Amino acid sequence: MIYMDHAATTPVDERVVKAMLPYLSEKYGNPSSLYGLAQEARKAMEDARAKIAGLINAKPEEIIFTSGGTESDNLALKGVALASKKKHIITSSIEHHAVLKTCEWLEKHGFKVTYLPVDRYGLVKVEDVEKAITKDTALISIMHANNEIGTIEPVEEVGKIAEEHEIYFHTDAVQSVGKIPVDVEKMNINLLSISSHKIYGPKGVGALYIRRGTRIEALQHGGGHERKLRSGTENVSGIVGFGKAAEIARQEMLSETERLSKLRDRLIEGALKIENSWLNGHPTKRLPNNAHLCFKFIEGESLILELDFNGIAAGTGSACSSRSLEPSHVLTAIGLRPEETHGSLRFTLGRSNTDKDVEQVLSVLPGIVERFRAISPFKKDFREYESALLKEHHSSGVD
Amino acid sequence: MIYMDHAATTPVDERVVKAMLPYLSEKYGNPSSLYGLAQEARKAMEDARAKIAGLINAKPEEIIFTSGGTESDNLALKGVALASKKKHIITSSIEHHAVLKTCEWLEKHGFKVTYLPVDRYGLVKVEDVEKAITKDTALISIMHANNEIGTIEPVEEVGKIAEEHEIYFHTDAVQSVGKIPVDVEKMNINLLSISSHKIYGPKGVGALYIRRGTRIEALQHGGGHERKLRSGTENVSGIVGFGKAAEIARQEMLSETERLSKLRDRLIEGALKIENSWLNGHPTKRLPNNAHLCFKFIEGESLILELDFNGIAAGTGSACSSRSLEPSHVLTAIGLRPEETHGSLRFTLGRSNTDKDVEQVLSVLPGIVERFRAISPFKKDFREYESALLKEHHSSGVD
Repeated sequence: MIYMDHAATTPVDERVVKAMLPYLSEKYGNPSSLYGLAQEARKAMEDARAKIAGLINAKPEEIIFTSGGTESDNLALKGVALASKKKHIITSSIEHHAVLKTCEWLEKHGFKVTYLPVDRYGLVKVEDVEKAITKDTALISIMHANNEIGTIEPVEEVGKIAEEHEIYFHTDAVQSVGKIPVDVEKMNINLLSISSHKIYGPKGVGALYIRRGTRIEALQHGGGHERKLRSGTENVSGIVGFGKAAEIARQEMLSETERLSKLRDRLIEGALKIENSWLNGHPTKRLPNNAHLCFKFIEGESLILELDFNGIAAGTGSACSSRSLEPSHVLTAIGLRPEETHGSLRFTLGRSNTDKDVEQVLSVLPGIVERFRAISPFKKDFREYESALLKEHHSSGVD
Repeated sequence: MIYMDHAATTPVDERVVKAMLPYLSEKYGNPSSLYGLAQEARKAMEDARAKIAGLINAKPEEIIFTSGGTESDNLALKGVALASKKKHIITSSIEHHAVLKTCEWLEKHGFKVTYLPVDRYGLVKVEDVEKAITKDTALISIMHANNEIGTIEPVEEVGKIAEEHEIYFHTDAVQSVGKIPVDVEKMNINLLSISSHKIYGPKGVGALYIRRGTRIEALQHGGGHERKLRSGTENVSGIVGFGKAAEIARQEMLSETERLSKLRDRLIEGALKIENSWLNGHPTKRLPNNAHLCFKFIEGESLILELDFNGIAAGTGSACSSRSLEPSHVLTAIGLRPEETHGSLRFTLGRSNTDKDVEQVLSVLPGIVERFRAISPFKKDFREYESALLKEHHSSGVD
């Protein structure tokens, strides 16, 4: 099978599995216990913490383990909001639902949230961030790279502004860590979310970087684990695997990024030869492994299933929302019309992909698109809808 | 090594590891994706859900996966409290910190909590529960079995009262599931917390049983996983392992309970031959694997370290609080004096333990206790303290 949905999840690297295994049935102690077996588990956990810190230029004690990216985002936003006297949060309209739905919850609990628009490439404008700041702003949360269209946001510039205004800055770096350089010092980041299963580690574990001195409240209460910020027996084998995955990502990122960028460019080039197709996201400020395409007159989900039948796994957008019939909020935010959002297809490349995989995709994709278009009941409707909306669309614009 | 701290955590059963492995590097799809690889993961997850439901006589759709027992307790208490218009919660003074610290958080956010006392055996009185009920009571949370002293609470009776008064009833069954029968129907339970790593499954995964129709709010927001009650990509391999662990527990519980009870009784009998020692918790209403002992004039932590040196892993009480210097809230609640709480030792038996292990413990324990007592600087202090407090203690009582 050709797996090209690495933004949804990645296979656990065999080296990671090997690192995890001893912590299931042999070195299984509870890190909070006092005897040697338990201390061995604690040491392994602290080694993993240092490796993850190393990947983003943080100190080990600034890394808090969580159950994944979603929990990290929840802890960052609610934790800071609940610990603050200020009641305003700035975010973007293309954040992952882990940020957006958390913001909605905060709105129900007395907070005000500004959702910044993005341009046609999915970029947040730095001046919009600055303009949105009020005396009551507790936190700015702008993702590092978008999970659907792969656009890389200007987080370093946002970080600078946040620092000038002495406002905490959180970034959801779930899609960027391990793929492009992340440096919490250089980027002036106070809080940063990471997920293990997006970097060839196991599912069910993540981390939140919290800069030393950041005022934040725990959300999960109990035995006081993780410096009282996240109670619950630590997922030792998962954490050890996450650490190994971070170590590998750090060693291999540069060469892998170069390799994947070439494959991605070849894939985009080939796919865009199909008529009535285009690339979503930014042409250059994009993740090295992301090719997010639209094919007019086609329903993305049928494409996914037909590709699957041909041994190719791809996504329509966020895996988390695949089961929803709502149009993607990201594609809507960059100005696509509803029927266009449904014709989208996301290929996200990874460690296992080769030139041959890309050629295989390019050898079947045009035929599939053509067949679907030939039988598409939407084609005529779309054309009518299109001409009706043409004037309106061109006058409103999205940039 | 002889491992006798199964209440802190358990080794992952080899059968469980075998079940988990394919879901790391082969069947690694994100259950929310649409293609076959992902659907395979989803199916495995739903199979696991059914197995866990089967262990407690629930329906599969009433099981929500979490990151562990602590998250389950947090979700049960805060989720119900935040969804309710009522502002009062009843719990006991010997709950796990995952319940107690959550209650403290709720108290800071406008809720009133009644912490019921327990008798000298650690039993909650059913009539105390009924007396504490007010028109404003949203939830009763009483643990099934205590994690330190192993006392089994009268949850079926509490469930009956809760039902009569139409109040939700949550029980933290982290220590009882897989060891003694749990039946959410028979026990009139609305919410029940389970942890995988206490039943020979992996760390980092747990579940909350939520009776159909229970009004509860999500705490972790995002992609809407787990029927919108717990967002975040599911820990598939962990969940599959948890399911396998539940299946094994269901098959082996009866015979294992019988076997462990005998070992436990032999251990208690032997240990109580040491002078100035006693058993904490109830003589019969106790977990089949728990022997919680006190040895006067000795500091429990030094005992743990010396036992470790002799190849025996035991606990002092809750692993989660091992690093704290505070006396156990459970031992304090059953009426032990501070210096007595520090002399406690918890043996919790499990699958790997044999007669030989028990004999080995009994062959070294008396000597260790004797050596420590000979050099104990506390002995004299204790005796003085004891005689000073004697009258007060006997007059106040704890039962």
